[in-house]
Amino acid sequence: MKTINKEEISYYFKTLQDSICKQLENIETKATFEEDLWQRDGGGGGRTRVIRNGNVFAKGGVNFSSVHGKTPQAILKSLKLPPNDFYATGVSIVIHPLNPHVPIIHMNVRYFEMSDGTFWFGGGIDLTPIFIDENDSKIFHQSLQKICNIYKEGAYAKYKKWADDYFFLPNRNETRGIGGIFFDRITGDKKEIFDFVKNIGELFAPLYLSIIKPHINKSYNSQDIKWQSLRRSRYVEFNLLYDKGTKFGLDTNGRTESILMSMPPVAEWEYCYKTTPNSAEEKTQLLLKKEIDWTL
Amino acid sequence: MKTINKEEISYYFKTLQDSICKQLENIETKATFEEDLWQRDGGGGGRTRVIRNGNVFAKGGVNFSSVHGKTPQAILKSLKLPPNDFYATGVSIVIHPLNPHVPIIHMNVRYFEMSDGTFWFGGGIDLTPIFIDENDSKIFHQSLQKICNIYKEGAYAKYKKWADDYFFLPNRNETRGIGGIFFDRITGDKKEIFDFVKNIGELFAPLYLSIIKPHINKSYNSQDIKWQSLRRSRYVEFNLLYDKGTKFGLDTNGRTESILMSMPPVAEWEYCYKTTPNSAEEKTQLLLKKEIDWTL
Repeated sequence: MKTINKEEISYYFKTLQDSICKQLENIETKATFEEDLWQRDGGGGGRTRVIRNGNVFAKGGVNFSSVHGKTPQAILKSLKLPPNDFYATGVSIVIHPLNPHVPIIHMNVRYFEMSDGTFWFGGGIDLTPIFIDENDSKIFHQSLQKICNIYKEGAYAKYKKWADDYFFLPNRNETRGIGGIFFDRITGDKKEIFDFVKNIGELFAPLYLSIIKPHINKSYNSQDIKWQSLRRSRYVEFNLLYDKGTKFGLDTNGRTESILMSMPPVAEWEYCYKTTPNSAEEKTQLLLKKEIDWTL
Repeated sequence: MKTINKEEISYYFKTLQDSICKQLENIETKATFEEDLWQRDGGGGGRTRVIRNGNVFAKGGVNFSSVHGKTPQAILKSLKLPPNDFYATGVSIVIHPLNPHVPIIHMNVRYFEMSDGTFWFGGGIDLTPIFIDENDSKIFHQSLQKICNIYKEGAYAKYKKWADDYFFLPNRNETRGIGGIFFDRITGDKKEIFDFVKNIGELFAPLYLSIIKPHINKSYNSQDIKWQSLRRSRYVEFNLLYDKGTKFGLDTNGRTESILMSMPPVAEWEYCYKTTPNSAEEKTQLLLKKEIDWTL
């Protein structure tokens, strides 16, 4: 049996980026992805694709990268390893839709290996509705549960909890959205994990599109836009205060514009904002909690 | 000679907050400060004052706090001290004006002491113009230089450099604005340092008001507003990614709404935004650098 090498994984991620961009563009009539190729000092580079001012997508990025070089000190230290080389490749997506009834989504799949043979996969996908729709949440989590079940028994429960803990804002005591799955430094049977990661990647666009299609033409008012801007500010807080990927990227001199493509087009902060009792805003606010079983 | 005790310093900061709020309100016709009193689990509390939707000030906070309790582990560790108690008091200000021709300002003065007798002062003031005006910058820095000179020879050069290094965004390779002065853990003759800190506090409102008065009625267009929103997003990035005070406050379970009063009302992110050649935007962008002597 042939083993899967890093070039194969990287090539797969590149085709995944192509496929996802194409599927997202299919639902757009006003915008297409722009592409920027960039090189990394020290080795490798990436292909950043950004869409903006669309009729569905206000701002979004679907980024591929494949970088290599000397392994960062922090990783060597955490694993008590002598200096070696690393190779990392992945696809990272954040989409901020225009309509407040359409949820923000994030997906990331990544592969990391070192010259000593150590390797792992990481990834995650989570949904951040401006207004939580319980039916959408059920579809989203059931779909994730299904691909986790193909991979390994217990994986959904484990990675769902991991997402609950990861996509959490301690400063607000609230989750970023309805969560999803998250995992990091998963190692073992490389083909099995890679198949799982492929399934996440290939689930992304069809699942997201099926969830958003019923909402993209819904009407909204200025208060809905205000609530969307406030929720987007929480997204900013999460990404800049707590997201490890953002911090790692900026600390290791990554390409700032590619990393911060995750920022919303606009965000708003209001001191001590209070939702109206019994409103859709309040309902959403009350559901920004860990440990909700959305599959039921 | 009587020594200055913590209650005296805290009382002074409280009257400083009163005086600054009154002076800022004098220039406003549409808004006044709202006050929230809060208590801290573990000891002490604060008096948060927020102004919003004014004709001059879009959003701003002038906060006083006086907290005490068990000294945080991080501080004990950095000083190799056994467990003890701390007392901290200060005034912290961030003002986001409405008109893009009016600069954002930040000021903070603080006093910290521990039950073992250790004490220090910290503080800083820095100006973040949306459009840099060289005359304003000169007035601002010359005023700071003047009060630094009263305190100690060499203080301005030292604290100006400290501000250059502190109010800097490595991810953007740009300063937050035109800097100012910054200092932390300054100890020595308590009366001398307290007098210096008082001078900063009392300089704040007259200096800021004298700088902004010529600009508050200037006309602006939608592109100026856009540039303001983009510059405000850099303010968000600085405060959430790099500001030590924000991080310390959130990590030690401070009152989130009081800490994040520093966030602008609105911020905007645009992928790879480019200023127009020879524009006022470009001029500002090119001046967001360390080591400019603004006093000349």
